[in-house]
Amino acid sequence: MGTVSAASTAFASDNAAPAHPRALQALHDVNEGTAAAYGTDAVTRRAADALRQAFDAADAEVLFAFTGTAANIIALASAVQPWHEILCSDVAHVLLDEAGGPVRLSGAQLTRLPSDDGLIAPAQLDHRLARLGAVHHSQPRIVTITQSTENGRVWSAPAIGEFVDHAHAGGLLVHVDGSRIANAVAALDVSPAEAIADADIVTVGGTKNGMLFGDALLVRRPEHFSGIHFVQKQIGHLASKHRFVAAQFLAMLEDGLWLDTARHANTMARRLSTGMTAMGLRLASPVEANEVFVHLPADVHRRLAPSYAVHQPDPAVPVVRFVCAWSTTESDVDDALATLRVLL
Amino acid sequence: MGTVSAASTAFASDNAAPAHPRALQALHDVNEGTAAAYGTDAVTRRAADALRQAFDAADAEVLFAFTGTAANIIALASAVQPWHEILCSDVAHVLLDEAGGPVRLSGAQLTRLPSDDGLIAPAQLDHRLARLGAVHHSQPRIVTITQSTENGRVWSAPAIGEFVDHAHAGGLLVHVDGSRIANAVAALDVSPAEAIADADIVTVGGTKNGMLFGDALLVRRPEHFSGIHFVQKQIGHLASKHRFVAAQFLAMLEDGLWLDTARHANTMARRLSTGMTAMGLRLASPVEANEVFVHLPADVHRRLAPSYAVHQPDPAVPVVRFVCAWSTTESDVDDALATLRVLL
Amino acid sequence: MGTVSAASTAFASDNAAPAHPRALQALHDVNEGTAAAYGTDAVTRRAADALRQAFDAADAEVLFAFTGTAANIIALASAVQPWHEILCSDVAHVLLDEAGGPVRLSGAQLTRLPSDDGLIAPAQLDHRLARLGAVHHSQPRIVTITQSTENGRVWSAPAIGEFVDHAHAGGLLVHVDGSRIANAVAALDVSPAEAIADADIVTVGGTKNGMLFGDALLVRRPEHFSGIHFVQKQIGHLASKHRFVAAQFLAMLEDGLWLDTARHANTMARRLSTGMTAMGLRLASPVEANEVFVHLPADVHRRLAPSYAVHQPDPAVPVVRFVCAWSTTESDVDDALATLRVLL
Amino acid sequence: MGTVSAASTAFASDNAAPAHPRALQALHDVNEGTAAAYGTDAVTRRAADALRQAFDAADAEVLFAFTGTAANIIALASAVQPWHEILCSDVAHVLLDEAGGPVRLSGAQLTRLPSDDGLIAPAQLDHRLARLGAVHHSQPRIVTITQSTENGRVWSAPAIGEFVDHAHAGGLLVHVDGSRIANAVAALDVSPAEAIADADIVTVGGTKNGMLFGDALLVRRPEHFSGIHFVQKQIGHLASKHRFVAAQFLAMLEDGLWLDTARHANTMARRLSTGMTAMGLRLASPVEANEVFVHLPADVHRRLAPSYAVHQPDPAVPVVRFVCAWSTTESDVDDALATLRVLL
Repeated sequence: MGTVSAASTAFASDNAAPAHPRALQALHDVNEGTAAAYGTDAVTRRAADALRQAFDAADAEVLFAFTGTAANIIALASAVQPWHEILCSDVAHVLLDEAGGPVRLSGAQLTRLPSDDGLIAPAQLDHRLARLGAVHHSQPRIVTITQSTENGRVWSAPAIGEFVDHAHAGGLLVHVDGSRIANAVAALDVSPAEAIADADIVTVGGTKNGMLFGDALLVRRPEHFSGIHFVQKQIGHLASKHRFVAAQFLAMLEDGLWLDTARHANTMARRLSTGMTAMGLRLASPVEANEVFVHLPADVHRRLAPSYAVHQPDPAVPVVRFVCAWSTTESDVDDALATLRVLL
Repeated sequence: MGTVSAASTAFASDNAAPAHPRALQALHDVNEGTAAAYGTDAVTRRAADALRQAFDAADAEVLFAFTGTAANIIALASAVQPWHEILCSDVAHVLLDEAGGPVRLSGAQLTRLPSDDGLIAPAQLDHRLARLGAVHHSQPRIVTITQSTENGRVWSAPAIGEFVDHAHAGGLLVHVDGSRIANAVAALDVSPAEAIADADIVTVGGTKNGMLFGDALLVRRPEHFSGIHFVQKQIGHLASKHRFVAAQFLAMLEDGLWLDTARHANTMARRLSTGMTAMGLRLASPVEANEVFVHLPADVHRRLAPSYAVHQPDPAVPVVRFVCAWSTTESDVDDALATLRVLL
Repeated sequence: MGTVSAASTAFASDNAAPAHPRALQALHDVNEGTAAAYGTDAVTRRAADALRQAFDAADAEVLFAFTGTAANIIALASAVQPWHEILCSDVAHVLLDEAGGPVRLSGAQLTRLPSDDGLIAPAQLDHRLARLGAVHHSQPRIVTITQSTENGRVWSAPAIGEFVDHAHAGGLLVHVDGSRIANAVAALDVSPAEAIADADIVTVGGTKNGMLFGDALLVRRPEHFSGIHFVQKQIGHLASKHRFVAAQFLAMLEDGLWLDTARHANTMARRLSTGMTAMGLRLASPVEANEVFVHLPADVHRRLAPSYAVHQPDPAVPVVRFVCAWSTTESDVDDALATLRVLL
Repeated sequence: MGTVSAASTAFASDNAAPAHPRALQALHDVNEGTAAAYGTDAVTRRAADALRQAFDAADAEVLFAFTGTAANIIALASAVQPWHEILCSDVAHVLLDEAGGPVRLSGAQLTRLPSDDGLIAPAQLDHRLARLGAVHHSQPRIVTITQSTENGRVWSAPAIGEFVDHAHAGGLLVHVDGSRIANAVAALDVSPAEAIADADIVTVGGTKNGMLFGDALLVRRPEHFSGIHFVQKQIGHLASKHRFVAAQFLAMLEDGLWLDTARHANTMARRLSTGMTAMGLRLASPVEANEVFVHLPADVHRRLAPSYAVHQPDPAVPVVRFVCAWSTTESDVDDALATLRVLL
């Protein structure tokens, strides 16, 4: 917890955004009298129903967690034994940005597969599957992909469908880290169910999309995650005053607010990237959701730092990330572009 | 997530209580613009300072977590190696009500010591300490006690002082599970620092005391918990929009609100227990904080169930728990007493 | 690895004994040419068959490990998930003398039940089973008992039968730590199968009973231990030159050698205990197998130490353990008795 | 444990070899009377001294384990916390052939670095070290290399020296998996100390080099592996009848037997590879120790299978491994070459 910088955090992350007023209002609305704890209350039941309905998954189990990291860990750790192998892309959040939590909790090897900005070719799974059976090797059990990816890419509905089917054909379960699933759904303009294809379990992001906190798990094949409620409890993510996480999901899912906020963030990212390319900057990845990855010369990045706290995901590569959120305004974007224009 | 009962949850748990209006208001107050994520924001810094000040612990590190279970696990798992032994009382929350999370995360043996309602005699430590050194045995490393205890008892300032000193003399660290520390401070009418004696690390409860969610860790001897920030991150308790947990702590600590709410809960528990004994019921434990444990004949408990969801901690023993919260009113108490009077 | 004492280790442990000549000879006999590694060789197949036959368990899986601690850990860790609870007696080797290995590997809580020298009353299980179902509690899954026990007691065939049936009726699996199973079989004069009743998995001791090293696992219900081969491999107990552990089991099982060695050790323990009581010493536990626990005044123990390295299992209690082995001779026993007589 | 094939295991692995007569004789020589258990006996002390002397490491701690997998796991798991990262090559045994044991035991992420047959360029470490410090990332703590490598390559003394120094400069510990360290020492014709450079901890292989079982750990900087004795105990690798593993090391180290056996195996590998290239086969890796990796057309491999059980390390690549051992004879080699000549 170092000194607070004067730099704007406007594009630092969608985690830097405030909460949407309707999420906040929902907290007030349910703050009446006592309520059963640990998810046995009526608000939680309604929120779970709303999530099942949004994803057209009547038989799914729904759990809530405080953070996306937790939701990912609960999903993966309840899917595997310590002699299993978890597969992920080489830019996966579970690999790079969760401090090793998924490995610690599962005890399982986490193996990165080459990818195109987080989009993995189905054939990449085959080499790992060849190791199934022998007692000397970790056994591939689940693959986790991210929709939209950590590099701001979106799996098209056919692409994710093909990938998931290929994984299933090889005997693998599929987890979708959907901490930005709303951005993907909005970008694809498909139904939420199409955006996750036949995945077995999905982290449905709330925090990055406008909530104060809270991500959910949609468990479509609960038989493969039989201890999931225990894992959730064991790492302290079964909220006691559970209505407060559930109420926010209810608010976001009502009238499609969750997709409106995501669509807005995506639009702002396009405005930003269009402005950047117009001034001659080169994008490192296609902008398909709410994140912009742009090549910035090291000295530009350095001179930008006092104005904008933006992230260089890989310290060795001069690519910088700008993230737009539900709260990003056109003038936020234009101000950033103006600052960049001065520096270039 | 079963069917919702019509029974009142008024005395089910302090987790059933709503959030205090000032905690909720604090969320609004900090919901302005973007802010640095993951605890690097200004609100978090102020909340950490306020907590240090409340406990007169200028050099302590402060971390926040979403739940008390998480705070306990982070404390214990960062204190030990998997060949260490964690000691606790036979009624400890970490032993009975965290689904084995502390053991899973630490890999260490958790050993229960006999206690008087959670109050452990210092000499109980000696027998364990005799096992130090030999490679065949788990090595005692930390003892965790609860203030106020799971059975509603309070360690007096001299008693906790003696216990902690004895543990330290034997080379043990001491953790205080203070999910109800405010109730203890209020009951003892001492300073917060006196209520935790020379403990090395303390879970400071927020959720049960009026917040929507959130417990803190006061780490007085950070050198013994060197990886604590990683453990917090690894189990998904480093909040991204961190200001929202910090702001609530700021609100509760302001003007001593956290002790006012606790004092009120304690007063309600005394009113309830006085009424119970007046009608001939026998208390199972002295009422020293905000919980009442009372012997209720099995048939009374059964007939009470449609009206009040109250907890029988041990299914084999006809003792029932009533918990009072910041929001419990005198008429809540009187209604419950009236219902009991009818049943008896 | 301190200085080597001049004290005799004759009664220190059955681990102090040398290897039986026939176990050693077996190593020579199989040391011919190359052989398939990791348990896929013909000697291993024959040894597994011999063990199945000895225990009348045609459908059991058989695995070998280098040590009894490893066999116990492999059994328990492959039976449970980290939200399960393992039950054991308050004197269990898995609880007290494996440095927390079973907890580290399984991540599960290990709960001690009161016992009579390791013999647990079936009703002790009921209290734990009452906690099944709720997500807040570790879920009891397996109980481990020791035959003969760490305190030298033997479960009679009816007693172990009743215990195992009671555990099964409650939904628990049963593991028998049989690091001294041969001593129990010899003492009871029943078939090996009767001595383990309907237990699901059994550690069959070899090391203490005359081998250089090696304990086996008899897995009667492999469907409940599905990853057991992986656990064995993961902790380095799938021997590469596997014939060398298998050959010793073959030698011990041939012509009932394993029971002859055990019977002899039991006889020596009886001779020793009879001599002790004759000189007025008081036994701490009935002598039913190959161990003698005797009350020895602290000063006698101290003066005995230069002559005999004998073990005081609990540093707080003046009870000392003498263990007889396959190699203990009558004159070993008589010498020890003579020494004691002088000291008293 | 499938059916036993009629194929010769002569080149299947150095694990397929029998034990050297002098290792076996050593078991007889120490099988006299009782001895202190768990490594506190005189034979163990002498073996530890001999190992220290062989590696010119007077201050090193020495531990023994039954297998190389175990020794590797004990080394790595005692070096790291679960938020650390372990680095290894992309062909490392710890990554590919220990069923995920190092990850399960350590809880730490295991990250593969690109290599040339297991030889890693020092600069490969730099990219990982850039992630040090931030709480979001696993923290690189130790790198493990293999000498000689899994692909039969040998780190030259200058190369391993430079690598270790580079790792140390970056704050990393270095483990050497020396399950075939004797082959490397013999190949390099340097002192054992030079072959491991300034590494902090070394697995010294015994099993593959002529023992029945047993690998050792040479811990040169014990202060970085403080709980190592507990890890050894926790996974069942502290032998009770410890003299039997120690005695074999004594025998192998006496008069340089361990290097003679290794030198012979290396010579046989050269004879084999020379014969192969003479008949037009192409080697996949330079033959520098006792392993030969050769490109074999798929149909040749298939037709070879009934005669020779040889291993295709990667099922997708037509490269086949032949391993020579201390017991491989010239006529074994010539027979294999003759068989190949027929098939080609």
